[in-house]
Amino acid sequence: MENYIELNEQTVVDYVNAKLDYFSKDAVYECNEIGDGNLNLVFRVKDTKNKKSIIVKQALPYVRAAGEDWPLDINRGEIEKKILEIEYKLTDGLVPKVFVFDPEMFCMIMEDLSDYVIMRYGLIDFIQYPHFAEQISDFLVKTLLLTSDVVMEHKEKKDYVKQFINPELCEITEDLVYTEPFHIGARNDMEDALVHFHKKEVVEDQVLAVEVAKLKFDFMNNAQALLHGDLHTGSIFVNQEQTKVIDPEFAFYGPIAYDIGALVANLIMNYISTEARCEDSVLREKHQEFLLNALKDTVDLFREKAFAIWDEVVTDKMAKAPGYKEYYINDVLVNTAGVAGCEMTRRTVGFAQVKDLNDIENDKVRIETKKTNITMAKELIKNRDAFTSGDAYVELIKKFY
Amino acid sequence: MENYIELNEQTVVDYVNAKLDYFSKDAVYECNEIGDGNLNLVFRVKDTKNKKSIIVKQALPYVRAAGEDWPLDINRGEIEKKILEIEYKLTDGLVPKVFVFDPEMFCMIMEDLSDYVIMRYGLIDFIQYPHFAEQISDFLVKTLLLTSDVVMEHKEKKDYVKQFINPELCEITEDLVYTEPFHIGARNDMEDALVHFHKKEVVEDQVLAVEVAKLKFDFMNNAQALLHGDLHTGSIFVNQEQTKVIDPEFAFYGPIAYDIGALVANLIMNYISTEARCEDSVLREKHQEFLLNALKDTVDLFREKAFAIWDEVVTDKMAKAPGYKEYYINDVLVNTAGVAGCEMTRRTVGFAQVKDLNDIENDKVRIETKKTNITMAKELIKNRDAFTSGDAYVELIKKFY
Repeated sequence: MENYIELNEQTVVDYVNAKLDYFSKDAVYECNEIGDGNLNLVFRVKDTKNKKSIIVKQALPYVRAAGEDWPLDINRGEIEKKILEIEYKLTDGLVPKVFVFDPEMFCMIMEDLSDYVIMRYGLIDFIQYPHFAEQISDFLVKTLLLTSDVVMEHKEKKDYVKQFINPELCEITEDLVYTEPFHIGARNDMEDALVHFHKKEVVEDQVLAVEVAKLKFDFMNNAQALLHGDLHTGSIFVNQEQTKVIDPEFAFYGPIAYDIGALVANLIMNYISTEARCEDSVLREKHQEFLLNALKDTVDLFREKAFAIWDEVVTDKMAKAPGYKEYYINDVLVNTAGVAGCEMTRRTVGFAQVKDLNDIENDKVRIETKKTNITMAKELIKNRDAFTSGDAYVELIKKFY
Repeated sequence: MENYIELNEQTVVDYVNAKLDYFSKDAVYECNEIGDGNLNLVFRVKDTKNKKSIIVKQALPYVRAAGEDWPLDINRGEIEKKILEIEYKLTDGLVPKVFVFDPEMFCMIMEDLSDYVIMRYGLIDFIQYPHFAEQISDFLVKTLLLTSDVVMEHKEKKDYVKQFINPELCEITEDLVYTEPFHIGARNDMEDALVHFHKKEVVEDQVLAVEVAKLKFDFMNNAQALLHGDLHTGSIFVNQEQTKVIDPEFAFYGPIAYDIGALVANLIMNYISTEARCEDSVLREKHQEFLLNALKDTVDLFREKAFAIWDEVVTDKMAKAPGYKEYYINDVLVNTAGVAGCEMTRRTVGFAQVKDLNDIENDKVRIETKKTNITMAKELIKNRDAFTSGDAYVELIKKFY
C-alpha cells in the first residue's frame, strides 16, 4: 500500500497519461467522478476535442458509505481484472476491455462505455432493450457453464477455485442477502410501516428461515462455476444494440443460480415498480410486456442454450450420462428462484436497496408495493421447485398484476 | 526436490537421529518397511532394548504400483501433517501425534502405533473392537461438523478451503470411485465371471449413472467440511481400547457424507465377506453381530452426537433456524448411503479392491458375494433417501443374509 494514493478529478489525467499512450497531445480533458461508488472511485477521462474517453476505476480500501471502519481487501481489484479478462474471452466481448491494471494503485484503466447506460436507470426511465435477453443469456451460459467442472479440466478448475476464493466480498453477501433481512436489526433499513409486516411475514416464518438457510449454505459451499457474484441491473451497461456486464469484484466459485437469480429478481422488481410509477398506461403496458419477455426469455434461453451446447462442450464422462443434463439445469433453475426471493427480500428491507422501489413517491403505494414484493419473494423461496421455466415467473406476476 | 532421497531400512535410523532426540545412546535398532505403501514409504524404527519405537513416513513422488509414469504432488506430505495437527486438536488424540515434519525430504516422524492393528486386517481375522463406533463417531462429528461453516467463522473456513485444495488426490477419487467403475475398461479389474454382470447391472443402468453423476459433482463442488478423504478400514488403527485414524493425505473440503460413506461401505463389505469366509458359525455370528452394531451405531451416533452439540457449537445465525439441523444431518446421511454404494462398487470392479472380498477362496462363492455386493451398492445409490438411520442399513443386510 505504500504507493497507493486515492485519485481525484484533478490528478487522474496525469495518472492515465503516465500509464497509457491513449490521448493525443492536443487533447482537451474533461474529468468526472461517475461512480455511485461505495467500494471504488470511478472516473471518466474524456478528450472533448478528439472525442475519445476512458474509464479509471480505483479500488478503495474500505466501504465508503460506512467509512474507514469497514475495511476491505484491496486486492479485489486484481481479481476483478482477471475475471474481466476471462469473461471477455469466454463471451466475445460482453464485458468491457481492460487496457491496464496497476497493482500498486489498485487501479484499472478500461474501455469507456459512455454510449451505454446503467440498465437500472434505463429501466427506471421505462426504456426497453430488445437484445438484452438474447445477450445476457449468452453471457450466463458462457461464463457459468464453461467455467464449471462439467466442462473444465478438473485440476484447472480447482486452480481457479483457489485463485478466486473471495472471503470478504462473499461475507458481505452472506450477511446482507442471506442473513440480516431475515432477522430484526443489524443494518436493515425499512419504513416504519413495514416493520410489523417484516417481523410477522419474514422474521417469524420458520419455514422460510430453513429454506433461506439451505440457500445460504448452497451459496457458501457449492463451488459450481465462476460467478459474477453481483449481477443486478446496476452491474449491467446497455443500449439498443449491446449489453456489457461490469463490476465482477464479487466473483468467486459459487452456485450458478446466484447470478441468474439476482438478475431475475431485479427484472421483477422493475416490473412491480413500473406498475406503481408509470402513469402513462400505454408506456406502462409496453414496458411491462418487455420486462415479462425479458424475464421469461432469460430463464428459457439460459436453459435452451445450455442444452444446445451441452453435448459439444461437456468433457466429464459422468456428466454425459443421459438425463444428467436435465437434472443439472433443473437444479440450477430451482435454486435461481430461491436466490431471486432472497434478493427481492433484501432489496426491500436490507442495507442496500433498489431505486426502482424507493422511487415510488406515494408512501401508501410504495409500502403496498414493497409488501407485494416480499410476498412474491416468499413464494419464490418456499415454492422454488415450481420455477423451472419462464412461464412460471409470468404466472407468478400475473397472480398479482 | 534437490535434497530429496528415498529412505530405506538401512538409512532411516541415521535420518531419525539427525532430526529428533528420541532414542537413547544404547539403543539396539530394528528397522522395517511396514507400508503396503503405494503412495508412501513407511518405516518402523524400534529400539528393542529400551522398547521405544517411532514411525517414519516419506511421501513418494509417484504411485508405486504404477511406476514413475503416474507422478504425484509430493507436497501432499505437508497437507497431511497440517491435517493431523488439526485433527489431533479437534479429537483429543484420535489421530497419531506428529513429532517432526521435514519439508525437504517430505518426511514425517510420528507416534508409533505398534500396539494397534490396521482395522481391515483385524476385521478380516474376525476380531471385534468394542469401542470403535463410539470413538469413530466422535472423530466424525468433531473433524467434520467443527470444520464446516455452520460452526467456523466463514472467512477462516474459506482460508482452510484454499489451503487444502487437493487437485491431484481428488482426481484419483473422481476417477477411481466415481467414474471408471461405471464404465467399461480403464483401470477396472474383475474376474471374467463378473464382466457380463458388471456390463448389464452397472454400466448399462442409466438411472444409476445419473445418480452417480449427482454424487460425483457433490464430491467435487460441495466444500462442506474438512474431510479425511480416504476413511476406509485400511486408514484406521485399532485395538481393544482405542481407535486412531491415519493417512489423511486425501484431505480436502468436501461433502461430510464422503467420509462416513467410505467407512460404512467397508463395514458392510467385511460383513458379507465374513458370511463367505468364516467357517466357525459361532464366531461368524458374533463377528457379524458386532459389524451390524458398529454400522448401526456409527450412523446413529453420528446423528445423535451432531444433534447434541449443534446448539452449543453452531455460530451461523441462519443455521440456528429451528428445523435446519434436522435437514442438514438428514442430507448428510442420504448422501452417505450414495457414497457407500459407489465405494462398494469400485472396491469390487475397480482398480483398488479390498482384501476382505478378494480373500474369499472359493471362486463361485467369491463371484456370488461380489454380485451381492454390487446389488446392495445399487440399492444404496438409487434408494439413498431411505437410508437415514442405522436400522435402514441393518434391514438392507437382512434382506440378503
